[in-house]
Amino acid sequence: MVKMRPLILISNDDGVHAEGLACLLKTVSPLADVVVLAPDTQQSGKSSAVTSGVDIELRCLRKEAGLEVYASNGTPVDCVKLAFYTVCRDRRPDLVLAGINKGTNSSINVIYSGTMGAVIEGCINGIPSVGFSLCVNPGEPADYSYGLPIVRKLVVELLDGALNLPTGVCLNVNFPVGPIEGGLQWCTQAVSKWTKEFDYVGVNKTTDNPLYTLGGEFVCMEPDREGTDEYVLAHHGASCVPLKIDMTDMHFLSAMKRK
Amino acid sequence: MVKMRPLILISNDDGVHAEGLACLLKTVSPLADVVVLAPDTQQSGKSSAVTSGVDIELRCLRKEAGLEVYASNGTPVDCVKLAFYTVCRDRRPDLVLAGINKGTNSSINVIYSGTMGAVIEGCINGIPSVGFSLCVNPGEPADYSYGLPIVRKLVVELLDGALNLPTGVCLNVNFPVGPIEGGLQWCTQAVSKWTKEFDYVGVNKTTDNPLYTLGGEFVCMEPDREGTDEYVLAHHGASCVPLKIDMTDMHFLSAMKRK
Repeated sequence: MVKMRPLILISNDDGVHAEGLACLLKTVSPLADVVVLAPDTQQSGKSSAVTSGVDIELRCLRKEAGLEVYASNGTPVDCVKLAFYTVCRDRRPDLVLAGINKGTNSSINVIYSGTMGAVIEGCINGIPSVGFSLCVNPGEPADYSYGLPIVRKLVVELLDGALNLPTGVCLNVNFPVGPIEGGLQWCTQAVSKWTKEFDYVGVNKTTDNPLYTLGGEFVCMEPDREGTDEYVLAHHGASCVPLKIDMTDMHFLSAMKRK
Repeated sequence: MVKMRPLILISNDDGVHAEGLACLLKTVSPLADVVVLAPDTQQSGKSSAVTSGVDIELRCLRKEAGLEVYASNGTPVDCVKLAFYTVCRDRRPDLVLAGINKGTNSSINVIYSGTMGAVIEGCINGIPSVGFSLCVNPGEPADYSYGLPIVRKLVVELLDGALNLPTGVCLNVNFPVGPIEGGLQWCTQAVSKWTKEFDYVGVNKTTDNPLYTLGGEFVCMEPDREGTDEYVLAHHGASCVPLKIDMTDMHFLSAMKRK
């Protein structure tokens, strides 16, 4: 009896032609058959947005034994949903991966991330799902190579069952820039936010209304707390935060129910 | 000494002219000064998406003592961020409210909801934040009136300190259609997902590629479990789920750290 190779679905938010996706694909291709379904264009900051009122077109870019690559005009979540509904309809993926994102998705950034939107969508559908991101600043060159041995090790462990994610839990993995010290470190989502959200860019000459463009400054409110993703990354480790898709605060809920 | 009235910031994802927003505004206006900053257009399903690469225009629609109404071409999260950066810059809101959404945001829908994106954004910024939604089906008439006494009571309790939300916790309130039995009931997010994600609509006549449009069927995986939002709503109660913006699964994290 021939054992079927496992199937990995890959998406991202930087677009199907992104270098980070190519690195991820190259790393996991020896381990499994792969279906890529990713956005045509840059979809950063799209969170778990879905597209309604616009037709989503499925384009096949490459199809060979063990590898199919597709693009769509949808968001990252649309891409994952569309994969489940079309190209993965008769063969359910064993793993959903997203990335490697160009830019950090650590701490509060997970909320806005299209990459993590794709991961959460995989998780909602009961499939072990992991997002990978490289904490490089916009416009800076990205060297994904340091994180690839960690990607490979994690994917092997997930495929062979050495690592079992509970239902409703997915992983948010972030890599620092440069060599990684101490391997993959399990940690919590650091408390953080963005301030100075917008930059004023002038007025609309027709309406005289003010115009703004998304800006912002990232602030970690607990940079010195050990065990958070920001702390791990600041100390050149790769952070791994297990995320629950059930956002219920059970502690506060219990307190309210006792009242 | 004159005590300043509290300030409430309202946004939504159905757009600044939505009836649900007008109902919410009318209910809370006697309790506080209000700033509305909401999208120009329908932004359902936008989750916590932010807009980059497009200028966001701030339009003032109404400005009088105690009430200012603005619109922008951004997402719900853009609207909340823009409010903090502009019209609420010198006077921080005491409360961020979103809704009343036309359509459910219970259980897993919280992940995709633009309304709840606005609420989560308020919470990230340390402000008590609540989203309200009416579980009416698309295309059906919406009667928001049954939920309004609950909105009023909750807002009074949040403003006078009878109800204190912990930092990093916001509320997702959903109303059933019709009369509400048993008032507001604290509950957990039910395990659920959408299946049959897309509908096939034909081929693109130029490219010959298949086209799809977002569809889907909602499936609650635990309809009979008491204490979930879906259970409460099915029994004509108003559901209130406290949501944590820190998505870390502490239980699984502890298990992994012990290894």
